[in-house]
Amino acid sequence: MPKVKNDRFLRALRREPVDVTPVWMMRQAGRYLPEYRATRSKAGDFLTLCKTPELACEVTLQPLDRFELDAAILFSDILTIPDAMGLGLYFEEGEGPRFSNPVKNAADVDRIGIPDPGDELRYVTDAVSLIRRELDGRVPLIGFSGSPWTLATYMVEGGSSKTFSGIKGMMFDQPDILHRLLAKIGESVALYLQAQIEAGAQAVMIFDTWGGSLSPVHYQQFSLHYMSKIVSKLKSLPGAADVPIILFTKNGGQWLELMADSGCDALGLDWTTSLEDAKRRVGDRVALQGNLDPCVLYASKDAIRREVATTLESFGHGNGHVFNLGHGIHPGIDPEHARAMIDAVHELSRPFHT
Amino acid sequence: MPKVKNDRFLRALRREPVDVTPVWMMRQAGRYLPEYRATRSKAGDFLTLCKTPELACEVTLQPLDRFELDAAILFSDILTIPDAMGLGLYFEEGEGPRFSNPVKNAADVDRIGIPDPGDELRYVTDAVSLIRRELDGRVPLIGFSGSPWTLATYMVEGGSSKTFSGIKGMMFDQPDILHRLLAKIGESVALYLQAQIEAGAQAVMIFDTWGGSLSPVHYQQFSLHYMSKIVSKLKSLPGAADVPIILFTKNGGQWLELMADSGCDALGLDWTTSLEDAKRRVGDRVALQGNLDPCVLYASKDAIRREVATTLESFGHGNGHVFNLGHGIHPGIDPEHARAMIDAVHELSRPFHT
Repeated sequence: MPKVKNDRFLRALRREPVDVTPVWMMRQAGRYLPEYRATRSKAGDFLTLCKTPELACEVTLQPLDRFELDAAILFSDILTIPDAMGLGLYFEEGEGPRFSNPVKNAADVDRIGIPDPGDELRYVTDAVSLIRRELDGRVPLIGFSGSPWTLATYMVEGGSSKTFSGIKGMMFDQPDILHRLLAKIGESVALYLQAQIEAGAQAVMIFDTWGGSLSPVHYQQFSLHYMSKIVSKLKSLPGAADVPIILFTKNGGQWLELMADSGCDALGLDWTTSLEDAKRRVGDRVALQGNLDPCVLYASKDAIRREVATTLESFGHGNGHVFNLGHGIHPGIDPEHARAMIDAVHELSRPFHT
Repeated sequence: MPKVKNDRFLRALRREPVDVTPVWMMRQAGRYLPEYRATRSKAGDFLTLCKTPELACEVTLQPLDRFELDAAILFSDILTIPDAMGLGLYFEEGEGPRFSNPVKNAADVDRIGIPDPGDELRYVTDAVSLIRRELDGRVPLIGFSGSPWTLATYMVEGGSSKTFSGIKGMMFDQPDILHRLLAKIGESVALYLQAQIEAGAQAVMIFDTWGGSLSPVHYQQFSLHYMSKIVSKLKSLPGAADVPIILFTKNGGQWLELMADSGCDALGLDWTTSLEDAKRRVGDRVALQGNLDPCVLYASKDAIRREVATTLESFGHGNGHVFNLGHGIHPGIDPEHARAMIDAVHELSRPFHT
């Protein structure tokens, strides 16, 4: 594999000095880009796009061809693992993901196996290898997975949920069953991320989109505990130990200290916590990634520039900041507004690194 | 007006000793109750139910006839103020609230007037007086309003929103216009709560359902600032100064210190902050209301009892706790599960008050 030419992202994750603050965007390969919509249309449906390494590679690289981004992130879905477990993932137009065989009881949990990343998830590792080759060292490639708790919410609810009544009913009534489910998912995620790293991922991120729906105690027991086990597992593997791991719990701003204790290298932040506050709380232990409100990109380029400046000032001088949105870029954003943000980060961050 | 016989709720809000912890539930008059569904069906539609004082009174009292609740809360909608401003509130089945004339620009903001609570909102104050009379001093009556920011989100978006792209676009691009809008709404909310107090409300609560969608800086400027002005205004009125005010920002757990600085009497908490933590941070200044995850009520009665005990222990000994859910009760809950929670609060809290 070729050496990385632009390694700002990896250096920032290790809290080493950089020339300017590195920047990438969650969901940077996505519907806001016309070239993405064209490839998606060519693929026919979303799952085909995810499961065809050539197409996944194509959309992964699209935002890099357009913008001065400092990292690529594997294009995939967070529900690949439950799909590989045989839950029958499908998408209803405008309705989000659904499972034909959701997990409803102990028997369902027992039925589930740990997917072999070299077999059922081979299309993902093939995509990682292909993207790595096609990137040719331009920027590092990020692999990712949903967190065990977040995957479990979809698996138990049978799809998206507003209230999480199903999984929380299980959590309060039958915590042992849920723990068995989470243990299986956790083991699967660890193997999956290990396989992505072996295939070429140079950093990995765990998306805990729904951990913030829990109380502090339940967050620790049912979400963070399983993410921490994955971190420990990966850090114990010779081939993965030095690959930075980013944890991101949406609405997890109250638990940053606990998250930093997991042994991860960086925390993703949404915009409800200031970088200044987060840096004071955990910045001597982990790097911080974030945290512009994605809605800023609906505003004018002047306003975007102003808000980028405010975000950079909030982190201030020092190492360990990766600029990002606080959540995925919205489908309705004008790509030129994304460019305004990316360019402003590079231009305005220079004084903070001298 | 008759004196209140059960004043636990008011005593707890003033952080005075009580025999057992008082309890009520957000949205306690709601769809989970068959008698509510019957009255709603009789009314024909939701807005008629809100706008007919006799029916609003009927549904307000229903949960009190069923359960040993320590407070009643006015049955109404949070969008009465924008409706009275002429925005044309209507409900589409399964779609939530909508406005025919949303606020899109400066001219729309200028067009809006401050509703006279004695005129356009007379149906609300009439309901308050009637409920107060019908309650006959059983328990105190809570009045309420949406927060200026929360009302503004609906007014600018034209209804519910997932991303708040419209109002946040305005916030980042034209903050002055949004501030003018929020000032008008804030003035309206203050007059509205004053009128509810004059009509008989014995405590008031401001629901800031969407303040938690903001960054810390924007929360302070665009949500908390206007709530604080309302608190100051009410506290300066001879007839309202001793009426407890509860502020509730959903997902506002990171900003409790700032909220307590507003001069309010109590903070409502969702379940993502522990009462123990909140008490340590602000419990010497304000009472705390909350904070059981409403999903606990999907679980068995044993589990409900266990989680009630954990919540009570989290607050521990001392004055100033009003038990509540951390958000409105869900429509699918079995009323007997609500009863299990209410009864457990009274039974299990006694040792904490000796």
